[in-house]
Amino acid sequence: MPVNSPPLLPEQLLPINGITLGIAEAGIKKPDHKDLLVVVLNDGAKVAGIFTQNRFCAAPVVLAKEHLAQQSIRALVVNTGNANAGTGEAGLAHARTTCHTLAELLGYETQQVLPFSTGVIMESLPIDAIVKGLPKAVADLKADNWFNAAHAILTTDIVPKAASKQIQLNGQTITITGIAKGSGMIRPNMATMLGYVATDAVISQPLLQEIVKYAADHSFNRITVDGDTSTNDAFMLLATGRAGHVEITSQGSTEFAQLQQAITEVSAELAKMIVRDGEGATKFITVQVDDGGNSKECDKVAYAIAHSPLVKTAFFASDPNLGRILAAIGYAGIDDLNVNEVQLYLGDVLVAENGGAAPSYREEDGQRVMNQSDITVRVVLNRGTATTTVWTCDFSYDYVKINSDYRS
Amino acid sequence: MPVNSPPLLPEQLLPINGITLGIAEAGIKKPDHKDLLVVVLNDGAKVAGIFTQNRFCAAPVVLAKEHLAQQSIRALVVNTGNANAGTGEAGLAHARTTCHTLAELLGYETQQVLPFSTGVIMESLPIDAIVKGLPKAVADLKADNWFNAAHAILTTDIVPKAASKQIQLNGQTITITGIAKGSGMIRPNMATMLGYVATDAVISQPLLQEIVKYAADHSFNRITVDGDTSTNDAFMLLATGRAGHVEITSQGSTEFAQLQQAITEVSAELAKMIVRDGEGATKFITVQVDDGGNSKECDKVAYAIAHSPLVKTAFFASDPNLGRILAAIGYAGIDDLNVNEVQLYLGDVLVAENGGAAPSYREEDGQRVMNQSDITVRVVLNRGTATTTVWTCDFSYDYVKINSDYRS
Repeated sequence: MPVNSPPLLPEQLLPINGITLGIAEAGIKKPDHKDLLVVVLNDGAKVAGIFTQNRFCAAPVVLAKEHLAQQSIRALVVNTGNANAGTGEAGLAHARTTCHTLAELLGYETQQVLPFSTGVIMESLPIDAIVKGLPKAVADLKADNWFNAAHAILTTDIVPKAASKQIQLNGQTITITGIAKGSGMIRPNMATMLGYVATDAVISQPLLQEIVKYAADHSFNRITVDGDTSTNDAFMLLATGRAGHVEITSQGSTEFAQLQQAITEVSAELAKMIVRDGEGATKFITVQVDDGGNSKECDKVAYAIAHSPLVKTAFFASDPNLGRILAAIGYAGIDDLNVNEVQLYLGDVLVAENGGAAPSYREEDGQRVMNQSDITVRVVLNRGTATTTVWTCDFSYDYVKINSDYRS
Repeated sequence: MPVNSPPLLPEQLLPINGITLGIAEAGIKKPDHKDLLVVVLNDGAKVAGIFTQNRFCAAPVVLAKEHLAQQSIRALVVNTGNANAGTGEAGLAHARTTCHTLAELLGYETQQVLPFSTGVIMESLPIDAIVKGLPKAVADLKADNWFNAAHAILTTDIVPKAASKQIQLNGQTITITGIAKGSGMIRPNMATMLGYVATDAVISQPLLQEIVKYAADHSFNRITVDGDTSTNDAFMLLATGRAGHVEITSQGSTEFAQLQQAITEVSAELAKMIVRDGEGATKFITVQVDDGGNSKECDKVAYAIAHSPLVKTAFFASDPNLGRILAAIGYAGIDDLNVNEVQLYLGDVLVAENGGAAPSYREEDGQRVMNQSDITVRVVLNRGTATTTVWTCDFSYDYVKINSDYRS
């Protein structure tokens, strides 16, 4: 089960003025399974997004980028059960048919629809099932449907991931609601698989694009489960502009900073939910690297620790075999690292300094922290003032089980 | 059990004129366990070596580099059960005491001894046990002891790794014998943990150093089990100069090329044995990348595939979920990769081309290859003429089990 994840309640999710959502069981991979989501936006809504860096990016990613460049987006469509990735020209045609069908149903143009898919790679998208399912999803459209939407985009996820937040901006209440899915094939650039955050804030598209990048860099791009970057990752930020405040047009304004901060907080909450529900996860690990020469070298150390199968299996076993963390720091790729200046903390316990175990370190102190399910690893490099934080999980039998059984 | 590894027989290993080996049970970690190896070299033997790139390199690695720089090496000492890594100044003192004790027993200088350790990181080396064990190992010294030596250096390995080969050089028979250990924390630069290859060839030290680098780059540096680089990796090449041929002094000579080729073959054989005995391995995977723009981009693709936990668990499950390999190719970091030109083969089966599944591909063909225990994945990039080969294994429940239980 997910690590320290309280159950999500429908009433925690606030509607966003201007947005309706509809779901359906299209039978894409399994029967009796919600696998299709349609999101409809008001006229004038702004959309910004970032996508996977994977060169084998999925057909819907190719098309979504193309459509997004033309703006005036009015709908999103998401299917699970099939990634429509590694599917060549036929995959592109299927993604286009999906957009076209939904556009006809809603009375929009094909390029006003953004398509998203997640699931198995290199299998043909069952387009007939999607075409048949779309009218059912459209018939289900309503504003108060975020809870069901959070369920409809899941694949190997055990729990839905969603969060809402309200802030005051110039005396107006702004609402932000987001959903995400992802559990395996999770690694930075992008790490989310799929994430959708919506707000009723009034903001221009270029500024919204700034926020989506900043929020991703401080949320979905800071998590890793297994180091595999998906072919389908996408993180979309939707702004309906219905909140009634004066439009945010300057990146230097207080309002911009407040909105960016709030959206980043919702995004980080969703990102951490993904890690807590990481495939087979039994521990939630925060890796914090302090006092580095620059943020790049802090990242190298943090990800070397977060990706090490040996470190991750030691966490699974609650075994304070902490030399494995030193080894990961050592091969992280900082060529001039002086290991005698590095300090390693596990929770509040100083584990290593001066190139070896700290004189004060006792195995029972390490064991006490290792027995917890939320653990912070802190590395102090003592080379500067840069800092970084990465979230990850342990590596268990169930990770192997889930990924061996995935298609069966 | 190791993948397709025929049992090693004592008579397969040929002695090297000038070298004697002795082993002992020193009780470093477990009782009744061969955990100490001493190798003694003739006067005038040449030694070359390469070591881990890990910044947290172990105390014995620091000392071995220091002693090797002074040459006239007469003995090597290897202990298992403790890596003497992440042990600070005390660890260095322990490694020095080990060398000093052996040097006294043999009548050499401390700096004529090279120390090596492998085992748990960040625990104090039980120096008393080693000091007490060394006379027993010295009493055991004999030329015909390679088989026992191959056993004495193992940790989580299931089977010993050793190989011999003879070639004719200018009418003289040259013998090469090598041993290695390693099963987890295996990744290029270095990947071996410990490897020792000896020959009676007559060759200068600078040329021997050229060969050790070349051989490593074509053997131990081409394997990966889990992507973790050890703190203690070392690969040593010993040449006793007793074969009676004219000394090899030119890198351009036929004799140099022949010797380098033979030593590389023995090293590659040892390296592949390490992968076949990779922690929890049930499959031996050869990843071949052809027609790349340069060897660096071929390496990127090969290691992306070889390190992907999703690809490795699919191999464990014998599941032809081959889209995961496309995803790994896509995130390997070739920014201008045109995925429509990439071809993917599994064994002799063309799986993907033109950005998707090949029209001729049938799941049962993929399944047939997946059911084998020795599998070749071949990626054709169609961007140039460079090529690379990497050897790896799958990722199983037992990898998690072995590394969760390692210290218990």
